[in-house]
Amino acid sequence: MEFEILSKDVNSKARAGEITTDHGKIQTPIFMPVGTAASVKAVHQTELKNDINADIILGNTYHLYLRPKTLILEEVGGLHKFMNWDRPILTDSGGYQVYSLSDSRKIKEEGVQFKSHIDGSSHFFSPEYSMGIQRKIGADIIMAFDECTPYPCDYTYAKNSMHMTHRWLDRCVNWLDNNPEKYNFKQTFFPIVQGSTYKDLRVQSAEYIANVGAEGNAIGGLSVGEPAEEMYEMTELVCDILPVDKPRYLMGVGTPINILENIALGVDMFDCVMPTRNARNGMLFTAYGTINIKNKKWENDFSVIDEMGHTFVDTYYSKAYLRHLFAAKEYLGKQIASIHNLGFYLWLVREARKHILAGTFTEWKNRLVIQMDNRL
Amino acid sequence: MEFEILSKDVNSKARAGEITTDHGKIQTPIFMPVGTAASVKAVHQTELKNDINADIILGNTYHLYLRPKTLILEEVGGLHKFMNWDRPILTDSGGYQVYSLSDSRKIKEEGVQFKSHIDGSSHFFSPEYSMGIQRKIGADIIMAFDECTPYPCDYTYAKNSMHMTHRWLDRCVNWLDNNPEKYNFKQTFFPIVQGSTYKDLRVQSAEYIANVGAEGNAIGGLSVGEPAEEMYEMTELVCDILPVDKPRYLMGVGTPINILENIALGVDMFDCVMPTRNARNGMLFTAYGTINIKNKKWENDFSVIDEMGHTFVDTYYSKAYLRHLFAAKEYLGKQIASIHNLGFYLWLVREARKHILAGTFTEWKNRLVIQMDNRL
Repeated sequence: MEFEILSKDVNSKARAGEITTDHGKIQTPIFMPVGTAASVKAVHQTELKNDINADIILGNTYHLYLRPKTLILEEVGGLHKFMNWDRPILTDSGGYQVYSLSDSRKIKEEGVQFKSHIDGSSHFFSPEYSMGIQRKIGADIIMAFDECTPYPCDYTYAKNSMHMTHRWLDRCVNWLDNNPEKYNFKQTFFPIVQGSTYKDLRVQSAEYIANVGAEGNAIGGLSVGEPAEEMYEMTELVCDILPVDKPRYLMGVGTPINILENIALGVDMFDCVMPTRNARNGMLFTAYGTINIKNKKWENDFSVIDEMGHTFVDTYYSKAYLRHLFAAKEYLGKQIASIHNLGFYLWLVREARKHILAGTFTEWKNRLVIQMDNRL
Repeated sequence: MEFEILSKDVNSKARAGEITTDHGKIQTPIFMPVGTAASVKAVHQTELKNDINADIILGNTYHLYLRPKTLILEEVGGLHKFMNWDRPILTDSGGYQVYSLSDSRKIKEEGVQFKSHIDGSSHFFSPEYSMGIQRKIGADIIMAFDECTPYPCDYTYAKNSMHMTHRWLDRCVNWLDNNPEKYNFKQTFFPIVQGSTYKDLRVQSAEYIANVGAEGNAIGGLSVGEPAEEMYEMTELVCDILPVDKPRYLMGVGTPINILENIALGVDMFDCVMPTRNARNGMLFTAYGTINIKNKKWENDFSVIDEMGHTFVDTYYSKAYLRHLFAAKEYLGKQIASIHNLGFYLWLVREARKHILAGTFTEWKNRLVIQMDNRL
């Protein structure tokens, strides 16, 4: 994997860059749509490519491991082939879902014992095992197996957990060094900074992670309920320590405003279920604020969904029609809203990139942040 | 509306024709995807046009009347504009849904009192009122308000119901003659033959309907549970009485085999929820039989969904992937299966048309009927 920084903003820490993987280039800053179980919910792969124009998508190791199962993915030659997606993919390590979805999980030094949310069956993930599964899934970027601490988290727990995450990281690196690549393309490994919302821990963790010398680095354990200001404070602290010449990925973030603010702090990559999950609940993001399309006020508003027209749905369908689809619980409503929101998120990061390259990022960002903080 | 017959099959009563409406041409025989509540479930309008290539779709008056409501459709200028579909639309009269969906309906000479399946509110449909609503919805082809008798149905009930349907038909015609068109395009009226599975009643009804001199005629009250042979017997009887130079629409039919057999008997138009409803349950229709994609046998079958490739989904996605989407209850599964099945139904009627024009219909039909009667 290669990463080239093309431009740095003079008034902030924002950067415009380009990542090159064996499945193609990723222009940064980038937002990665979440394709949990080998599908970005309610969206065709063709729409992701041709309409939304996503450079890279994310898969969840926990979900893929349980269904369709690692063996199936291995048999077909990896997730790219299974879902017929030929652009880059990133997989998380499974850790986050193990903590948030499964019952009676037990975290030990060796790894995590958990029960499937599907059938209650018992499973065990260790750092080594997560690496093995991710090799078989075959993402272009694979993530360290870490513990994502909740918010709030007491200091001692956060500190011990961070140290365990660091020891797990060493085990991940060791396993990857001693096991061959699986497919005929390069898989790049990103370690993850933890440390909850404690500055000293975040500094320690960022230094530890920077020391690994990985081709990219991630910030985990944020966007888990803490106030946005606290998130920004941690991001800034960590970004200033992580290598400047490697991409920085802020995991699970966030709202359009969160994304712009974190770009300003030096983050290059984002993922979040928000655009698709909120879409399925009838919430649309636009450059002028959010729309609850279920609201009666749209009942006879026959104007197009979004005049800015990021994707075909924005100008093909009207607000009144989309509202009707939600009222009638029609699948098409969720499909339209999902395409709209992802199209908007991708527009947002591409527009941010343009402004970084043009030297107008901060001014634009400050305007957008105010403009988007509206309910239409 | 114009109807031209381009070719008649020599070995059957099949015809290839062309209907011209103010929203474009319809090549017959044709299958009309059902867009109950202003949406063909899980399918974008753009996919209906560009991938499935549907010449015409159907809307349900009962559903549209309740949601988004007639007033909204009137305000925007009709259903075409509301859903942004510029090809022809046909609406049923609301009768069928009133009988099958609503509680405590009361059928009287004047019309039908019923309760909404959405909120239990009381409503009343008369032949005149149904015509008024259909004018406002603005379909290119609107249907008579009739009573669809169940199967089995006792002779006296079927006879009395048929006579009431005929009296209602006269009231529909009278209302249409005395009320102006609503939009700047022509709306064509089709009366409906009833008479359950009684030959003498079907003959009487077909003669009554033929006498109206409408621009097209429909056969209702079939595909309601009777054996296929009984359906074919009624269709043949009725088609032989209905005017040869007008399109014949067999309502609510059916399986791919039903469609081919009825084309052979002289039917030109079909609609059915089967391709979309069964798709959402994981059942795929193909030229070589049906596939239950949920079956474990497809778990690691990485071949494409359908090599015949009627639509892009058929060759873009594999059987194993589609099976996984159903197992994981992903929306995309229903979307893919719906596009596939509709693409197949439209391929089937287009292929039938080609064979009628080429003089090879019966031979082809007999082969397909055997071939499709398989579980893969």
